[in-house]
Amino acid sequence: MRAARYYGKEDIRIENIDDDACGDGQVRVAPSYVGICGTDLHEYLGGPTFAPVSPHPITGDTIPITLGHEFSGVVKEVGNGVDGLKVGQHVVVQPTIYCSSCGACTAGVENVCYKGGFIGLSGGGGGLSDSVVVPGTSILKLPENVPLDVGALVEPLSVAWHAISASPLTEDSTVLVLGGGPIGLAVVQCLVALKTRKIIMSEISKSRQRFAKEFGAHHVIDPKTYDLVAISKELSGSDGPDIVFDCAGVPASLTTACQAVKARGTVVNIAIWEKEVPFQPNMLVFREAKYTAVLGYQRKDFQAVIDHLADGSLKPEKMITSKIQLENLVEGGIKALINDKESHVKILVEVGGE
Amino acid sequence: MRAARYYGKEDIRIENIDDDACGDGQVRVAPSYVGICGTDLHEYLGGPTFAPVSPHPITGDTIPITLGHEFSGVVKEVGNGVDGLKVGQHVVVQPTIYCSSCGACTAGVENVCYKGGFIGLSGGGGGLSDSVVVPGTSILKLPENVPLDVGALVEPLSVAWHAISASPLTEDSTVLVLGGGPIGLAVVQCLVALKTRKIIMSEISKSRQRFAKEFGAHHVIDPKTYDLVAISKELSGSDGPDIVFDCAGVPASLTTACQAVKARGTVVNIAIWEKEVPFQPNMLVFREAKYTAVLGYQRKDFQAVIDHLADGSLKPEKMITSKIQLENLVEGGIKALINDKESHVKILVEVGGE
Repeated sequence: MRAARYYGKEDIRIENIDDDACGDGQVRVAPSYVGICGTDLHEYLGGPTFAPVSPHPITGDTIPITLGHEFSGVVKEVGNGVDGLKVGQHVVVQPTIYCSSCGACTAGVENVCYKGGFIGLSGGGGGLSDSVVVPGTSILKLPENVPLDVGALVEPLSVAWHAISASPLTEDSTVLVLGGGPIGLAVVQCLVALKTRKIIMSEISKSRQRFAKEFGAHHVIDPKTYDLVAISKELSGSDGPDIVFDCAGVPASLTTACQAVKARGTVVNIAIWEKEVPFQPNMLVFREAKYTAVLGYQRKDFQAVIDHLADGSLKPEKMITSKIQLENLVEGGIKALINDKESHVKILVEVGGE
Repeated sequence: MRAARYYGKEDIRIENIDDDACGDGQVRVAPSYVGICGTDLHEYLGGPTFAPVSPHPITGDTIPITLGHEFSGVVKEVGNGVDGLKVGQHVVVQPTIYCSSCGACTAGVENVCYKGGFIGLSGGGGGLSDSVVVPGTSILKLPENVPLDVGALVEPLSVAWHAISASPLTEDSTVLVLGGGPIGLAVVQCLVALKTRKIIMSEISKSRQRFAKEFGAHHVIDPKTYDLVAISKELSGSDGPDIVFDCAGVPASLTTACQAVKARGTVVNIAIWEKEVPFQPNMLVFREAKYTAVLGYQRKDFQAVIDHLADGSLKPEKMITSKIQLENLVEGGIKALINDKESHVKILVEVGGE
């Protein structure tokens, strides 16, 4: 079968490899659509970071590994002990890999498992292949009214849903979202689905500003042109936004988030940080604010997103700005995102499983 | 009357000044005992910081101002419109000054009032004088079984109580306290009063380690000798402490707090920070931890501390390591704390109000 294999920095190869066997408790999925993620770009440009260079403690794999962790597909084989699934079922794969025994897992926070990883980044196969064998517990069914291409968007929407679930959001909240990349735009859409009263997006890029408006942000501010802290306080009609989501993860966004948030407000960090940054904790002290960090998602976040796709309150189709074939992954996908990221939100690879 | 007046760095003078008039809604208090606080030391060594060099937006005062914000005293005069208070009543003064109209105040967080300050630091008189006139709303009654010297400890204990109230503490919690100064020791005592299952104190100084044990910390660890992160995880019997209180406010304590806390745990920062510090938010991301900042206290914290002093569950008498006279404030109080801080927890100035 075909598979997009990551060998290291700037080295991804479309190869023919053998299928894995589908054992007890496992399910074979033929991936249909696979989103390309910022993490994939980081691995390509500067990795290996997540991709294991020594045997991964759970998958046992080292590079080369198959990429693709945002994907929908069709069930092709159901292992013994997996109930309620039939061949032909449209599904989404929740790619979290976890050990079930570390302190985080036993505390019910398997998304930060200390040995953990992701299908499609840490070994254990990936979505960018004609067939992948995953644990039955990783499978969520796609309702009939949710098409397979939209199914590939469940993963990034679940990142946003998970972050929002960690915040004290109510319908009355005023929310500032810093950064209009795919995750920031996913946050806006989930906030809209949750009927949030006021959603303010901060973004520099004109095209991303347009996307933010299309997806329902009530105010879109260019922080290079306007005083974002002052405007977000004014738009809040009070002391500042109740919640600030940092989807940018740069020193300026950290400072802005801490300065903009209201007294006793909450900053939720969704970003992964490349390095240490300067930080003055007094910014939080002098407003008694909270800084909450989140990572990834849990199964319940995937299910919530699927439910909201099914009932029509999430309509993310416009996130798909291009569809490409597997053979065109590097040129038409990864390099397109690196060289022209402003035009794109999400490029899907059409692998073909149906 | 006598008053200890702050003129600037290393310049505190005991002077004779006029009494203020006691107007409507105000109360005249003769201070009995006044604690010397780390903030007073900072003003003496490196100020003015809190002390206003231009008219304070609420008090209208500039330096010189009268010091003393941790104090008990006796009511000497009750202004019109103040109910339920009699001359002779033993009281504690909650020194927060706030505007009632800013975003923080209208959100009920007057302790971070954007124009705010403290009686004894921001003008409006102070405890280190024979008489001080304060708003009636700043007064809390001391029960008869709580002596006036202990009353001067209500303020630092309320800092701790307020911080604990901002945390998700339960009796089953494991708590790590970083730093055994007066506030860290106050946190330990409040945790003991709240019957916390496991209290771990990290402190370098041998004498402060002894204080921590006396006040009821279950484990006292010297972080220079032992691997505090590893030991606190082991003592937690799980993934790490549920809550870490940072009472030290240095780069090492920030890092230790973020590395020690369990997945989904809470770091509570009580410290005021002198400057920016290097920070890697991923420390919180990879355990989905919260960082919560607190400042000062509210009236309800003072009342809770007084209630627990009255019922005997808080027994802070041993915090008082010395009592001095007002004339000896600089040599016997401020300089003693600067030069021999390890021997002392709290030095009280006996002003004499009775």
